[in-house]
Amino acid sequence: MAQRVKRIGVLTAGGDCPGLNAVIRAVVRTAHKNGIEVYGIFDGYAGLIEKRLRPLTETDVSGILPKSGTILGTSNRDNPFKYYDDKGDPANAVDVSEQVVKTIEYNDLEALVTIGGDGTQSISMEFFKRYGIPVVGVPKTIDNDLGGTDITFGFDSALQIATYAIDTLHATAEAHHRIMAVEVMGRNAGWIALHSGIAGGGDVILLPEIPFKIEKVAETIRHRIDSGKRFSLIVVSEGAKPEGGDVVVKKMVKDASEPIRLGGIGNRVAEQVEELTGIEARVTVLGHLQRGVSPSPFDRILATRFGYYAIDLIMKGEFGHMVGLSGRDIVSVPLEEATHRPRIVEPDGPLVRMSMDMGVGFGV
Amino acid sequence: MAQRVKRIGVLTAGGDCPGLNAVIRAVVRTAHKNGIEVYGIFDGYAGLIEKRLRPLTETDVSGILPKSGTILGTSNRDNPFKYYDDKGDPANAVDVSEQVVKTIEYNDLEALVTIGGDGTQSISMEFFKRYGIPVVGVPKTIDNDLGGTDITFGFDSALQIATYAIDTLHATAEAHHRIMAVEVMGRNAGWIALHSGIAGGGDVILLPEIPFKIEKVAETIRHRIDSGKRFSLIVVSEGAKPEGGDVVVKKMVKDASEPIRLGGIGNRVAEQVEELTGIEARVTVLGHLQRGVSPSPFDRILATRFGYYAIDLIMKGEFGHMVGLSGRDIVSVPLEEATHRPRIVEPDGPLVRMSMDMGVGFGV
Amino acid sequence: MAQRVKRIGVLTAGGDCPGLNAVIRAVVRTAHKNGIEVYGIFDGYAGLIEKRLRPLTETDVSGILPKSGTILGTSNRDNPFKYYDDKGDPANAVDVSEQVVKTIEYNDLEALVTIGGDGTQSISMEFFKRYGIPVVGVPKTIDNDLGGTDITFGFDSALQIATYAIDTLHATAEAHHRIMAVEVMGRNAGWIALHSGIAGGGDVILLPEIPFKIEKVAETIRHRIDSGKRFSLIVVSEGAKPEGGDVVVKKMVKDASEPIRLGGIGNRVAEQVEELTGIEARVTVLGHLQRGVSPSPFDRILATRFGYYAIDLIMKGEFGHMVGLSGRDIVSVPLEEATHRPRIVEPDGPLVRMSMDMGVGFGV
Amino acid sequence: MAQRVKRIGVLTAGGDCPGLNAVIRAVVRTAHKNGIEVYGIFDGYAGLIEKRLRPLTETDVSGILPKSGTILGTSNRDNPFKYYDDKGDPANAVDVSEQVVKTIEYNDLEALVTIGGDGTQSISMEFFKRYGIPVVGVPKTIDNDLGGTDITFGFDSALQIATYAIDTLHATAEAHHRIMAVEVMGRNAGWIALHSGIAGGGDVILLPEIPFKIEKVAETIRHRIDSGKRFSLIVVSEGAKPEGGDVVVKKMVKDASEPIRLGGIGNRVAEQVEELTGIEARVTVLGHLQRGVSPSPFDRILATRFGYYAIDLIMKGEFGHMVGLSGRDIVSVPLEEATHRPRIVEPDGPLVRMSMDMGVGFGV
Repeated sequence: MAQRVKRIGVLTAGGDCPGLNAVIRAVVRTAHKNGIEVYGIFDGYAGLIEKRLRPLTETDVSGILPKSGTILGTSNRDNPFKYYDDKGDPANAVDVSEQVVKTIEYNDLEALVTIGGDGTQSISMEFFKRYGIPVVGVPKTIDNDLGGTDITFGFDSALQIATYAIDTLHATAEAHHRIMAVEVMGRNAGWIALHSGIAGGGDVILLPEIPFKIEKVAETIRHRIDSGKRFSLIVVSEGAKPEGGDVVVKKMVKDASEPIRLGGIGNRVAEQVEELTGIEARVTVLGHLQRGVSPSPFDRILATRFGYYAIDLIMKGEFGHMVGLSGRDIVSVPLEEATHRPRIVEPDGPLVRMSMDMGVGFGV
Repeated sequence: MAQRVKRIGVLTAGGDCPGLNAVIRAVVRTAHKNGIEVYGIFDGYAGLIEKRLRPLTETDVSGILPKSGTILGTSNRDNPFKYYDDKGDPANAVDVSEQVVKTIEYNDLEALVTIGGDGTQSISMEFFKRYGIPVVGVPKTIDNDLGGTDITFGFDSALQIATYAIDTLHATAEAHHRIMAVEVMGRNAGWIALHSGIAGGGDVILLPEIPFKIEKVAETIRHRIDSGKRFSLIVVSEGAKPEGGDVVVKKMVKDASEPIRLGGIGNRVAEQVEELTGIEARVTVLGHLQRGVSPSPFDRILATRFGYYAIDLIMKGEFGHMVGLSGRDIVSVPLEEATHRPRIVEPDGPLVRMSMDMGVGFGV
Repeated sequence: MAQRVKRIGVLTAGGDCPGLNAVIRAVVRTAHKNGIEVYGIFDGYAGLIEKRLRPLTETDVSGILPKSGTILGTSNRDNPFKYYDDKGDPANAVDVSEQVVKTIEYNDLEALVTIGGDGTQSISMEFFKRYGIPVVGVPKTIDNDLGGTDITFGFDSALQIATYAIDTLHATAEAHHRIMAVEVMGRNAGWIALHSGIAGGGDVILLPEIPFKIEKVAETIRHRIDSGKRFSLIVVSEGAKPEGGDVVVKKMVKDASEPIRLGGIGNRVAEQVEELTGIEARVTVLGHLQRGVSPSPFDRILATRFGYYAIDLIMKGEFGHMVGLSGRDIVSVPLEEATHRPRIVEPDGPLVRMSMDMGVGFGV
Repeated sequence: MAQRVKRIGVLTAGGDCPGLNAVIRAVVRTAHKNGIEVYGIFDGYAGLIEKRLRPLTETDVSGILPKSGTILGTSNRDNPFKYYDDKGDPANAVDVSEQVVKTIEYNDLEALVTIGGDGTQSISMEFFKRYGIPVVGVPKTIDNDLGGTDITFGFDSALQIATYAIDTLHATAEAHHRIMAVEVMGRNAGWIALHSGIAGGGDVILLPEIPFKIEKVAETIRHRIDSGKRFSLIVVSEGAKPEGGDVVVKKMVKDASEPIRLGGIGNRVAEQVEELTGIEARVTVLGHLQRGVSPSPFDRILATRFGYYAIDLIMKGEFGHMVGLSGRDIVSVPLEEATHRPRIVEPDGPLVRMSMDMGVGFGV
């Protein structure tokens, strides 16, 4: 495939996620094989605003496949269209997008690979539309809730540690005849809770997509006790909500720092279930362990395919698109699509239905 | 869905594989929820020949999700149509299939769930056709080479340990500037080698589907040395063959016990590459570690879906079929199909092509 | 060694801990080899109060070496001298110790192996002194703060997961240029925090034994930033206290359930450090993951030696003692000693001094 | 402590071992804190012969704590007193020790930290005695058979993977009613086999220190079958020998590359036991997986203490010594001692005796 591109840039933005380094490695390896130089941009779009970028060598990407995190660094606050200073005051937000364009032109970057989630891809789309910057997006979200792709890397790895945690808590739950609640990631989509709940044999699974009645949760646990099972495992999405509005989360957000908010719904569920059943309940909040775990083989392969295909798109001149997985094939979708179809768990989907048929409670 | 079935049997046959217990658990849980009693048959078809079976309780399947192996036991030599005694002399093979039918009738088993690979499913098909035994097959092969399903459980778990091994050997290879060869499972299909090779960053991947020239392997390694990389990782399928016939494997099979045969091609490749390049080479043969690893979340979920759907087929009276995965859906295929379309790696498939484009050597 | 004992009982009490099953297995195996029958007593002393015990077979203890938890179950509220009902109201506490004695006599238990921590061993001592019950104690505390032994099983296993967590959080901390605080077990003794902090390369380690000044913690982090290190890892014992009284913990204990209390000091430290340094801080509370992890080889061996030696003491008629490790030898110490010498970290011990010399901050 | 040293060198030699990087990190961190510059010497003494060395920075040692291997590289063939060329022909061995001295003087290295095993420490002693080079040794041997220290780092990590392997093979052994033999490291000392055998619940443990009778091994397995246990696990040291001379190993050494030799005794034992008992037997040879595993917390702490104390010795001017662990204290011993007291398993030591009392077979 004929190509003229000589130099491109790559950045990672948003929350880190196992597999980011695998994408970077694939981008660099593939680009070099095709005579394309790759500039690493540090800390997401911030690197383009602050002119922090440099060429990446084979050595830079050697041995990074098993490593979580990102050798480029990332940022949660790097939107050039609404950029605000270190104090982090959105009130001071300004548009510095032209500085980004200047940096791209100054360094002769003929294309940009932006690895990130919904927010990042929206920014990339904006640069593509408003300034005609030739961007190619690579989807990234540990929650697996991004549209335009069947699945994103990082999710399978998060599943590994979440399932391991459930396996581990099982022993203590059984020894102490306790209820063990484990809170996993998933603000708007319950994919991690649903999959790890099934894989770990959770007795109750609470998802953002299925508002729960705490009384129903207690019912499931009482039913287990009646059938001689003196312990229960509850898997809770951080975004799970009791029926009738997200009271819990709101309250938590109002008066506490993230860790408490993270622990919000899990703690609340445990306290209420303990009250209702009289069985001791404990909570574990996995939090960032889900991000830092070494990428699973599945995620390393998917991430590598994404990076490889991103260079393919660049050489074809197919910009304003994002790579994605469809069935077994890597495809490309317009950024609009990607950023407008969040993927959430269908309350009557096959996995939920199967779990219900097998006796798992969803608090309904 | 209306059903009349009152009692069924379940067995596991062939080499063990992470996820077998998850299938058994799903079969029992789902059957019980539908008022169906489940008899566990021990050591594959041997249990039906020797009348070793008993009802399975909720307790039997409690806590087995994370466990590899199979609570029912399995056997590699249990073909009732060609059964031979403990001395294991095929010359004495006899047809004891009628005994199997007697056991099924005596115990009022109205259907049979047979979890196994190609061999097992052929036997099940034979019982279905010749005796009209209502069988439902669940595919099982760690090599992932069975037709009728996109993927089988066990494969993703084997991938975990294979990739972990490559990551681990990487350190020693680098410290000693050595060539490290790791031999993974895959007699006829190189799926594990290909996927773990990509996930682990193997420099050379040798598959049964792509006969290799040892000189080409040495070339890839020399090329790495020239570019300053003093170590290399070679991932070898146990069924990998040098171009011009499978000399090595034949020789190995002829005069040695399995462990040596298992180690055959890996050792041979290492010796020859060391000779050709002058770089010290070492071999690790993963062998049974790939079977005994705790099932990955992906495998636990897939195995659970298979077991759940097997009961669904039984209640629908859809016999002589095998469950399978197609895209994201669980489907059923006639046993014939399943047993007549082995899945092997396409030498020009997307993963092989991508790897070649990224500089991985395949010995060609 | 001549012995007359025909039947003994074994129980596990207090918080569960990796290695309990290894002790039980060794007790049963060794006893059987010496013609001694072993009764398993369920849920600690509660089993003797409520007459829940039964003979243990080889099958009961087969394959339990790698399993955390305890096949006998345990309890945190089983003191027969101050027993209170399910409502858990200490006000209703009564002395039911005679019931325990009755159960022991009724079942002809000639000796008792009590596996537990400080509380359990005190109860055992009381039974030995007041009623002459022939008890042998086996020390158990994940915090490693029990006297009478150099080290207890469970500690090394907790260290594995704590260190793994620090390794894992490292990636995210580095990618986001954040402060990551991880809170580990250790109410009164900081062994887990100190050892995992050194093993994981923590930049700040906060222990109950060394009251910290939050300003000093911030100083260490600022110093790192000045030397170009934009991320920091803080390892916090759940019992760590700011200088000038344990305000934080008290407050937490007063108004919250255990999970919040567990998260108390970690969250507080993170919030304050974020405020003082302006660097984003996140917290992970490991909690029960530290209890449920599969026992490490070291813990399995130590636990096995303890169980083996407990039977040795019984056969020698050496009661009222507890087994312990002294250097490389298993010894026995009077229960008094064991329960009166808590082991805590010496603020000027070799590990603390070494860490300080290597630049680790302790908030002082 | 007053010190005058301005610059030192550090090298790692011999087979790699988990914890080497932790020693290097501690050496560099501690030296820098004391104003001492550290030169990293590459590939053991070879680096001093070939003048391959450079200053190590904080960045070089940042984040290497969890990594196995060695950032300095190592060599198995770097004896300057008997140095031979790439062809590896000992016949051409020459004494290039003066070149080493020249390199040390030319680079103003005032002391040398040599991290290595028996061979390396003997070389260091020779340089200390013949040329007065101020060396400090740090013991390293995964087999744990080095004198002068209670234990060496790397051993506990090797134990982790060996025990994990036994746990893993357990499932397949049980499912297939097979004998599983696992061969672990230990040429002259059976520490890894003994400890992992106890930790993994091996039924038979074969050590170099206890020559075995294969018939006795078969007896133990038959005894298990009689008591209803249809599977058995055999843990074999690579140096295990049948009574009456090490025939097997010799034969293997004579005609095969290391991997075969490594697999030698394990395969032989499996074949013979299968023949004698009629039970299918399989072998797994762990090989280099034992070297590449991430260092355990215990090893990271021990390695860190060794590195820290090595600098202490240098500042005290205590040369010609090796650091070591004695009880809980880090001590220093003259290199002679260290290199003249190999530590092997005592056939009547407490762990062997305990195992025998608990029914484990040692082939005697």
